[in-house]
Amino acid sequence: MPRFRVVLVEPLYEINIGFACRVMKNFGFKELCLVRPRTSITEASRIFAAKARDVLESAIVVDSLEDAIRDFDLKIGTTGKLAGPRNVLRSVVPPWHLHELIKCKGGVALIFGREDIGLTNQELSMCDVLVNIPTSEEYPVMNVTHAMAVILYELSRAHIRPKARLANAKLREVALKYFSDILELVDFPKEKEPKAKLVFKRVLGKAFISQKEMHVLLAFLNKVHTRLSSLVARKS
Amino acid sequence: MPRFRVVLVEPLYEINIGFACRVMKNFGFKELCLVRPRTSITEASRIFAAKARDVLESAIVVDSLEDAIRDFDLKIGTTGKLAGPRNVLRSVVPPWHLHELIKCKGGVALIFGREDIGLTNQELSMCDVLVNIPTSEEYPVMNVTHAMAVILYELSRAHIRPKARLANAKLREVALKYFSDILELVDFPKEKEPKAKLVFKRVLGKAFISQKEMHVLLAFLNKVHTRLSSLVARKS
Repeated sequence: MPRFRVVLVEPLYEINIGFACRVMKNFGFKELCLVRPRTSITEASRIFAAKARDVLESAIVVDSLEDAIRDFDLKIGTTGKLAGPRNVLRSVVPPWHLHELIKCKGGVALIFGREDIGLTNQELSMCDVLVNIPTSEEYPVMNVTHAMAVILYELSRAHIRPKARLANAKLREVALKYFSDILELVDFPKEKEPKAKLVFKRVLGKAFISQKEMHVLLAFLNKVHTRLSSLVARKS
Repeated sequence: MPRFRVVLVEPLYEINIGFACRVMKNFGFKELCLVRPRTSITEASRIFAAKARDVLESAIVVDSLEDAIRDFDLKIGTTGKLAGPRNVLRSVVPPWHLHELIKCKGGVALIFGREDIGLTNQELSMCDVLVNIPTSEEYPVMNVTHAMAVILYELSRAHIRPKARLANAKLREVALKYFSDILELVDFPKEKEPKAKLVFKRVLGKAFISQKEMHVLLAFLNKVHTRLSSLVARKS
């Protein structure tokens, strides 16, 4: 089983912090990280945490989402908002896509947004994969802890059997850097670069690419990069 | 789709009544029945119902569970407590067992117990089937509305169609062909080619890459391929 961290970004209500702890413990998750909470942990938080006070008391508070997710291999964002099929930023998977994840190894951050405005586009772009719970179109906005219940339920219901090691964050970065350099080397249209990079990142994210798979991919990217560089150099 | 009624037996907290309405509407359920509520519907209920006030306002209140479920064909109870395999009363199915139910016709009552003591044995015996959400053994007692979120999610997810169009087989072939050609152009070690191709194919497969994402990826591969080819040609 990977190391899971639940990240709550700028939570607004003390009750939700408590409920988050309870639902986490219900499904066997213990590590909570609060990013710039807009409320304190109060007696109400403790009451709603019920028998998950240990989760509440060991919760850590950080100043930025970057700090919250820095050492994690796979960053999973959650969003209630969907966009048209042409919007790559909000290209999402349903919760059951996470089903096999529990069998992997590595560090996984599950990021939940603000009660009022969710995650910003900038925060969403930091995620490797985005999960959306299919809801009624009439009222798609779930309370954050109910969304958490669904996602943690879905994550935990698979059998626990260690499987592949997730590609780590460092290798993801290397891959993205190669990709970015290659775009330059082939004069990929500048205005289309951000989208291409995001698609590349998301595809690796959605695939839960393993460390082994990543090494193969890096060997490929390295080879392409080296060849392009040397040909471009020789040409000039 | 069957007619679904959510039944809350003797709810204790005004907040939970509100949250129940919200989570119901999130998943497209509208009919709520309260059996002998131990609290009133208050302003707090309305606040926590958020945009599901219509569900709250149309909720009916009855005096007995019998009255609540009388006209329903299938009565589904929920329980957080498990018993040994020999205890027939508490023989349960997991939530995903309900998966196909949405395709049936008829009346289905979903019965949720009290926050403090759940459903009594007598009430459980009135149910046709009992659902239990698999939780951590350390802390199996979920808040009733979080349990509801999981069960309504599971019930409703069968009739949700995937939104994105999967990249079609033809485009996958084109991508693989580009990839293969690029391996040649960069003198990728011959003996490692089959593995590289397989990884490439698998990563796209695992990601359920969409048609839209595939077009972005193809634009990239095409650019790399064109550039490599022209550089190689100029060199020779």
